[in-house]
Amino acid sequence: MEGEPTLRLRIFNLNCWAIRYLSKRRQQRVRLIGDTLRQEGFDLVLLQEVWSEQDYSELKVKLAGCYPFSHYFRSGVIGSGLCVFSRFPILDTLLYQYSLNGYPYMLQHGDWFCGKSVGLVGAREQGRSQSPFVFLSLQLHAEYCRDKDAYLPHRLVQAWELAQFIRHTSKAADVVLLGGDLNMHPEDVGIRLLRGWTGLQDAFAEAMHFEGCKNGCTLVPDNCFTDKSELLPFPLGIRIDYILYKAISSFTVKCEELKTTTGQAPGVDIPFSDHEAVMATLHIQRQGQPAGATLGTADPALADVVTEARAEVGAGLRAARRQRYSSGRMAVLALLLLLLQAAAALVTLAGLGVEQPFPKLSFCLLAFLALGVLVLATGLHLFHTMEVKMLHGTEDQMWMVLRALQERP
Amino acid sequence: MEGEPTLRLRIFNLNCWAIRYLSKRRQQRVRLIGDTLRQEGFDLVLLQEVWSEQDYSELKVKLAGCYPFSHYFRSGVIGSGLCVFSRFPILDTLLYQYSLNGYPYMLQHGDWFCGKSVGLVGAREQGRSQSPFVFLSLQLHAEYCRDKDAYLPHRLVQAWELAQFIRHTSKAADVVLLGGDLNMHPEDVGIRLLRGWTGLQDAFAEAMHFEGCKNGCTLVPDNCFTDKSELLPFPLGIRIDYILYKAISSFTVKCEELKTTTGQAPGVDIPFSDHEAVMATLHIQRQGQPAGATLGTADPALADVVTEARAEVGAGLRAARRQRYSSGRMAVLALLLLLLQAAAALVTLAGLGVEQPFPKLSFCLLAFLALGVLVLATGLHLFHTMEVKMLHGTEDQMWMVLRALQERP
Repeated sequence: MEGEPTLRLRIFNLNCWAIRYLSKRRQQRVRLIGDTLRQEGFDLVLLQEVWSEQDYSELKVKLAGCYPFSHYFRSGVIGSGLCVFSRFPILDTLLYQYSLNGYPYMLQHGDWFCGKSVGLVGAREQGRSQSPFVFLSLQLHAEYCRDKDAYLPHRLVQAWELAQFIRHTSKAADVVLLGGDLNMHPEDVGIRLLRGWTGLQDAFAEAMHFEGCKNGCTLVPDNCFTDKSELLPFPLGIRIDYILYKAISSFTVKCEELKTTTGQAPGVDIPFSDHEAVMATLHIQRQGQPAGATLGTADPALADVVTEARAEVGAGLRAARRQRYSSGRMAVLALLLLLLQAAAALVTLAGLGVEQPFPKLSFCLLAFLALGVLVLATGLHLFHTMEVKMLHGTEDQMWMVLRALQERP
Repeated sequence: MEGEPTLRLRIFNLNCWAIRYLSKRRQQRVRLIGDTLRQEGFDLVLLQEVWSEQDYSELKVKLAGCYPFSHYFRSGVIGSGLCVFSRFPILDTLLYQYSLNGYPYMLQHGDWFCGKSVGLVGAREQGRSQSPFVFLSLQLHAEYCRDKDAYLPHRLVQAWELAQFIRHTSKAADVVLLGGDLNMHPEDVGIRLLRGWTGLQDAFAEAMHFEGCKNGCTLVPDNCFTDKSELLPFPLGIRIDYILYKAISSFTVKCEELKTTTGQAPGVDIPFSDHEAVMATLHIQRQGQPAGATLGTADPALADVVTEARAEVGAGLRAARRQRYSSGRMAVLALLLLLLQAAAALVTLAGLGVEQPFPKLSFCLLAFLALGVLVLATGLHLFHTMEVKMLHGTEDQMWMVLRALQERP
């Protein structure tokens, strides 16, 4: 099969920030995104934060001509926000929802309600008979405070689950291509873990030609929708949206060009989103001999990265255990108070003791308060029990991998 | 590689019914299971409902000699209950938690709290350099009432997600082997869907020699722990525990023998569990040429099965939408009542109106009741919104598969 023409693949990746009622100028921006995608005619479009199914439907109608295949991934209360438009026929899809994704009571952050996931699409170029390409669109838990990042253990569990998911689902694929908002800086432990454990390459680092925001940043102060205060420590901006790829079997992938938008959509005065779009042109070529599955890199530093990530997950596990204990204790105290009140009420009703020492109203208020605390604390206890289980499970898996890495010759 | 010796694989599968404080004679039975496994020396042991990590740890210590590799899958509040003991080195593991698994408020059924999942273990026979074997241990949502099975849509979503998971994770495996309590009779639509969409073969149907309960039943009236009233319509018992398998690449698998226990563990007077154990002896042999991935069967009836399953999921979707609407309406009514009370209280406090028409106690009780209803109904509304999303997503995926099946020449 040598001499088969190179496949030139143009990819568009964007976190659309299309939250109904909350995102500024949403409808105008979604129309703009649709118009641009129709004009530019990419091969593959990976979008995140398309929270409204109506926005997806409108995009689908508009893009039916140039991207005949598409898929929207549903999950969580609000949705996963993930969708894929493709020039290639989509063979099948799979959604993997991370086992941890923040806390339901952190309403102001809202990640828990989104059901953050990774959406996988298997696609094949018409006329080719090889194994499919695997395309992934995804988003990880947001980082709200870099100095005291309470969500780091959850994000690391997500990065780990994502890496495991990629390893297990891509074994027979020719090419794996991932686009998404990873909510991590390039040097963060989660990125190093994901790349080290899967062998994915960073299109920005590999690109022969780059054009766009300095250092490939995708959250930049020049964008009128970004929160400037968040970017104060990073005057150039930060890079948290990525296109990553790897060839698995007998293919090679090269990144010819990488572009980002620069605070505005091309030719108009508003940006597509509060994130910059990332656009890559990849060259995919078949080699003579299958190279065999290369699932992880042979990077000797991988064990160090897994150790570092495991320490963070361990710290999260200890914190989760403390919260499980506190909420459990609170539930027990509330239950004791309720039982005490019930006993007092029974004694009064039976006319055995002295008259009830509290006025009825206070007595009832206290009982309701105790009941409310009992219900809430029990719910929290259950939630943190699940959190402990998942953090513990991830820590175990990482330990197993570390042992295997150390045993490797 | 022709002429490579046949691998004879002996597998033990059991739903252990080891629920702390609830299951009868649990510790004695777990000891018995451990002793039997140690004596018999299987190659692979797939267990379900080992809810207590302590039971797993004890089994691990006892079995370390003959099954040096093992894994326990953590998830949910109580755990997944799944564990694997293996003579082969375990390369890696992956846990997939089904997106739907009953209702948290159905406390008497408790499935929601278990975090029911499928646990995958990649293992390789030492000295062989091929792709790994994929072993899966799993359990689906229980069936509590066959005539009015409210959980059927959830179980079908689980069967579908399981099938998709197997298709995506087993593409490069030599052999896939699944053992578990599927909670479905052999002719049920969920089993037909799983087998049709993955091409898995039923060890009971394929076995050259069978020994055990009639029809391979695994819940039988002869077992002293089974609920006899549940088995009244099925005097011989029912078959809900399975060993399924398939060869993916250049291998063939044949089932030489299948056995079940018959209401008692061999040589003693109590059973291992309320389920019967299923034991299979498989012959795995390498063929000359890789046969290529055969992921689904070419069964022309598959489209009918997917249509049937999709209709059931659609019925579940309509029910979930009704429940989402009811709980949403209840939340709105409770909110209105609270607002009304707040207005009345404000008017009274400001001394603008007449005196408060209710005694304080009733007023407070009503407010607390409204608040409680508001919180509960909102929680239910969120839960059913997620349920609707997942049922809708599954319906969509099934439709996509149906379209692809119909387009196939």
